[in-house]
Amino acid sequence: MSRLRFKISMSLDGFVAGPSQSLDNPLGIGGMRLHEWIIPLEVWRASHGLDGGEINPSTPVVEESTVNIGATVMGRNMFGGYPGPWNTENPWTGWWGDNPPFHHPVFVLTRYPRESFGLDGGTTFNFVTDGIASALDQARRAAGGQDVSLAGGANVAQQYLKAGLVDEMEISLVPALLGSGERLFDGLDDDLHGLEVVRTVATPQVVHLKFARR
Amino acid sequence: MSRLRFKISMSLDGFVAGPSQSLDNPLGIGGMRLHEWIIPLEVWRASHGLDGGEINPSTPVVEESTVNIGATVMGRNMFGGYPGPWNTENPWTGWWGDNPPFHHPVFVLTRYPRESFGLDGGTTFNFVTDGIASALDQARRAAGGQDVSLAGGANVAQQYLKAGLVDEMEISLVPALLGSGERLFDGLDDDLHGLEVVRTVATPQVVHLKFARR
Repeated sequence: MSRLRFKISMSLDGFVAGPSQSLDNPLGIGGMRLHEWIIPLEVWRASHGLDGGEINPSTPVVEESTVNIGATVMGRNMFGGYPGPWNTENPWTGWWGDNPPFHHPVFVLTRYPRESFGLDGGTTFNFVTDGIASALDQARRAAGGQDVSLAGGANVAQQYLKAGLVDEMEISLVPALLGSGERLFDGLDDDLHGLEVVRTVATPQVVHLKFARR
Repeated sequence: MSRLRFKISMSLDGFVAGPSQSLDNPLGIGGMRLHEWIIPLEVWRASHGLDGGEINPSTPVVEESTVNIGATVMGRNMFGGYPGPWNTENPWTGWWGDNPPFHHPVFVLTRYPRESFGLDGGTTFNFVTDGIASALDQARRAAGGQDVSLAGGANVAQQYLKAGLVDEMEISLVPALLGSGERLFDGLDDDLHGLEVVRTVATPQVVHLKFARR
């Protein structure tokens, strides 16, 4: 069974992005604080074409998150581009350059239709206008039996969580406060749809909480 | 140095009490979910005069939290009693019966003056009307060199956290959603005042995150 797997970094006060998110600062003010634990890791650097870096208890968590993923679903804000219809004269192709780190089909939820396109390294971007269930169906088919990664952002993640469609969730809890921004668990009801903590990994920089159905 | 130590159970979505808190339901709707991990423990049952119970990885966390505490500070809501001036005809003496589990001086922050009184087992309740710094000063003096426990609720805890007066904090994170209620980290700025994660203990029911200054 192809599972929908979601991972995100969250502050102790529940924020997954800082305030004032924009094209210039997609993580919001202070949002980079949530990702400081991953940047020094060798495994992260290698996936972004960089040498060096360290190995620590977060390494196997990051490695595990990339195994057996055949497709990705993400929201329009995570993909980027100015709001509104797509500019076909000067098309936005995502934050990740010519060779994005996905190397598989990515499905972007949007209100505005757009033709699929491919970049180097096997990544294709596909645009879905008929909702989260359709995007998941298409991603599952594209994944060819492998799992689907739910990349975020918060709004799309909330929709999948609320619908009970998330099979596995890794919350990387950063022991810091952002004070404001975008909360992951906002406007959700009180139901984790059977997701329970099945594994924790703690470092001084981050505490990884893996949720799944038993 | 006498430290101010704070411990609280918090849901994954950041709530420390459910909605609609009242004298009849001081934890709010669904708030008891946050405390399900502690009720079966032998160490908790013993402190409430009950036999039996279990021992699990949460046991040393609970034991540690009670060691070397010489006084407690709490808010008016945590102490209880109808809002407004104290009813001296029919005085409220707290939720804990004739022999409260503190066995040391407790300082209750309130807007309304009231005479101190003692109950069985060494617990005294003292009422402080001139703010959090004064309550902490009085508790430190009463603690005779031991630490002071900050018992909550959320509003008083926020005041102490915001002022940077908390020296040690144990967040017992319950991997469940309440969906609404009272958030611990609300209206705070983005500053943990040097508190860092120094120890984690994980069980399927709860993940304990201990914060202190290194």
